[in-house]
Amino acid sequence: MTQSYDELKASPRVLLGPGPSDANPRVLKAMTTPMLGYLDGEFIQILDETVNLLRQVFGTGNKLTLPVSGTGTAGMEAALCNVIEPGDSVVVGINGYFGGRIADIVQRCGGAVTAVEAPWGSAIPAEDVADAVKSANPKLVAIIHAETSTGVLQPLDDISKIVKDSGALFLTDCVTSLGGQPVDLDRRGIDIAYSGTQKCLGGPPGLAPISFSDRAVEAIHNRASKVQSFYLDMTLLEAYWSGEVRNYHHTVSMSMIYALHESLRVVLEEGLQDRYKRHERNAAALIAGATAIGLKPIVQEGYRAPMLTTINIPDGIDDVDIRNRLIEDFGIEIGGGLGIFKGKAWRIGLMGESSTQRNVLLVLSALEKLLAEAGHDLEAGAGARAASEVYAQA
Amino acid sequence: MTQSYDELKASPRVLLGPGPSDANPRVLKAMTTPMLGYLDGEFIQILDETVNLLRQVFGTGNKLTLPVSGTGTAGMEAALCNVIEPGDSVVVGINGYFGGRIADIVQRCGGAVTAVEAPWGSAIPAEDVADAVKSANPKLVAIIHAETSTGVLQPLDDISKIVKDSGALFLTDCVTSLGGQPVDLDRRGIDIAYSGTQKCLGGPPGLAPISFSDRAVEAIHNRASKVQSFYLDMTLLEAYWSGEVRNYHHTVSMSMIYALHESLRVVLEEGLQDRYKRHERNAAALIAGATAIGLKPIVQEGYRAPMLTTINIPDGIDDVDIRNRLIEDFGIEIGGGLGIFKGKAWRIGLMGESSTQRNVLLVLSALEKLLAEAGHDLEAGAGARAASEVYAQA
Repeated sequence: MTQSYDELKASPRVLLGPGPSDANPRVLKAMTTPMLGYLDGEFIQILDETVNLLRQVFGTGNKLTLPVSGTGTAGMEAALCNVIEPGDSVVVGINGYFGGRIADIVQRCGGAVTAVEAPWGSAIPAEDVADAVKSANPKLVAIIHAETSTGVLQPLDDISKIVKDSGALFLTDCVTSLGGQPVDLDRRGIDIAYSGTQKCLGGPPGLAPISFSDRAVEAIHNRASKVQSFYLDMTLLEAYWSGEVRNYHHTVSMSMIYALHESLRVVLEEGLQDRYKRHERNAAALIAGATAIGLKPIVQEGYRAPMLTTINIPDGIDDVDIRNRLIEDFGIEIGGGLGIFKGKAWRIGLMGESSTQRNVLLVLSALEKLLAEAGHDLEAGAGARAASEVYAQA
Repeated sequence: MTQSYDELKASPRVLLGPGPSDANPRVLKAMTTPMLGYLDGEFIQILDETVNLLRQVFGTGNKLTLPVSGTGTAGMEAALCNVIEPGDSVVVGINGYFGGRIADIVQRCGGAVTAVEAPWGSAIPAEDVADAVKSANPKLVAIIHAETSTGVLQPLDDISKIVKDSGALFLTDCVTSLGGQPVDLDRRGIDIAYSGTQKCLGGPPGLAPISFSDRAVEAIHNRASKVQSFYLDMTLLEAYWSGEVRNYHHTVSMSMIYALHESLRVVLEEGLQDRYKRHERNAAALIAGATAIGLKPIVQEGYRAPMLTTINIPDGIDDVDIRNRLIEDFGIEIGGGLGIFKGKAWRIGLMGESSTQRNVLLVLSALEKLLAEAGHDLEAGAGARAASEVYAQA
């Protein structure tokens, strides 16, 4: 049974899939900081700073804002299981894989799901949410801000108004959007939002920033039953993260907190507006270049999430073969399709650190070369040229 | 609302509490490895190696062995919520804080708890488990191997036999023991065990290694209801970690996996038997030295967990004051008491990297100095001298 292994090695990659994205080297360095006790005054200060930085990126003054000790999916589960009790009515927008995942978790919490569906690649129409809210009288309405399976950026303002008028709580999944597009919790009246530390925040995966409005906190405090998860029970986490006495709940990961602290500093040093514009500019250049080499974006203009572009795989092109060649010949990772998009779509992420002009020109050149080798008749350099025109205009 | 912070700083500490312990510098360095995609062939190989290393430390051939993406408490919850369904009978040994936490989680899963209690600081008597098993006819019996709140190392062999004979599944919490004392899942017939990556494994907190026997896996596959947690659902995690096709479930933390891979390599390079002996030798020296300066261990000889020694705080000594002085004057963290031991006990951890002769002599000298300043009549150097005698004999 004894087996030993050498020190791990990882080839340098350019991560242009749906996540993980490349981590900022400053963030990797921060993780070499030695451990501190979870009640050490120095560590408590780092926690407080991290939460204050998080509030700025979320656009909220919410007291109950913290990173859950798990990945984005743990954030989704924490957001739902703390609020939903058996029998609760929940309206869920489903226009991709992750809306479906929310519905699954709601059901595991004993909630009754009313689905508002839209085709993969389209946004959820606000009027359909209005109808569902009228008929289902929900405690909570859950909407994905940027659907990682389709690349749709969901308009939220009209839906927010509908949800507020109904008195329900408004939850948005910001896993892919936070740090790449405005989420603006307070301005939009979002009660519950969660994200991950990778993607547009530029850190490694491992924590799930989450935020609850006072109304959401009240709903948690008014539960008739205990939260079914001890690990994700916000009433217990709250006591550690913001209590007068820092009550032990679990030993948080110092290294992950160090990483998040540094990645939030990087985000805010760039400035949120500049960061959003950078994501938009690089997505526009990618799409111009992709179109020039015959690759069609799936999502209609006006609804595209700039951090994640989905592309129809052209007829006769072998999905897996091209993605393997991208890795082997160029060290570039792009994503395949998820769910019903499997084999039909590529997902090209330009998230956080990965969203650069350099990466746009690189991935276009590499795709152009591989498509030409597969028999597509392309004018050499067409993709890069079209992208460059976008940069010249910007 | 805008607020910025400097790069985080952490004073160098000597971590001798109940966790986190000091992380090995090789492990911190491994975390600077850049991200890889979660389906990248290179990353899959690192996952496979990590699982093979984990099996060696757990002493098991269990196929379903992996690190859950959360801290030790997530491991506890995953171990319980995958197996327990509403109405299931569960026997739980409670002789400290963490046994109580298991009972809490069992109840959140809808299970019916039969508690086998013993005083804090004592082990659970096997005959009491036998009585409970006879009356409760449980699906699962859960026992803490090393109680982090009391420092008791629970004998497991007799209890294992009782549980096996009853046909129930046997679960042990190895959060504090794994890597510091033998857990030997297969030899002992333990069906479910979990731990954390910090403490005796010498990594940062953040993942929870877990292992399920084939019988436990069968129990999971035979559930009538879905696992209440999506994030911790082993049937879904299994498909990513060991499926022919690596089905996406969530994006694991590359950095945490890198850290675990390296810390397991460090553990196995030292050798498990040597590592266990190191923990025993340093605990014996600590206890000899502590006794020499008038500090009495709480747990009876023969039941002491060598990675965590609990000490009665002497009358007239201010718990918090002494611990603050240890941090301020020496950079040493020891733990206060948890639960009913609050203000009554100190918990001195010698775990993983922190378990060294240097640290034993240091903490004894520091405590001796502070106790003398508080008016205790001590012969200077008595603690270090008594500890050194233990090392001389070893």
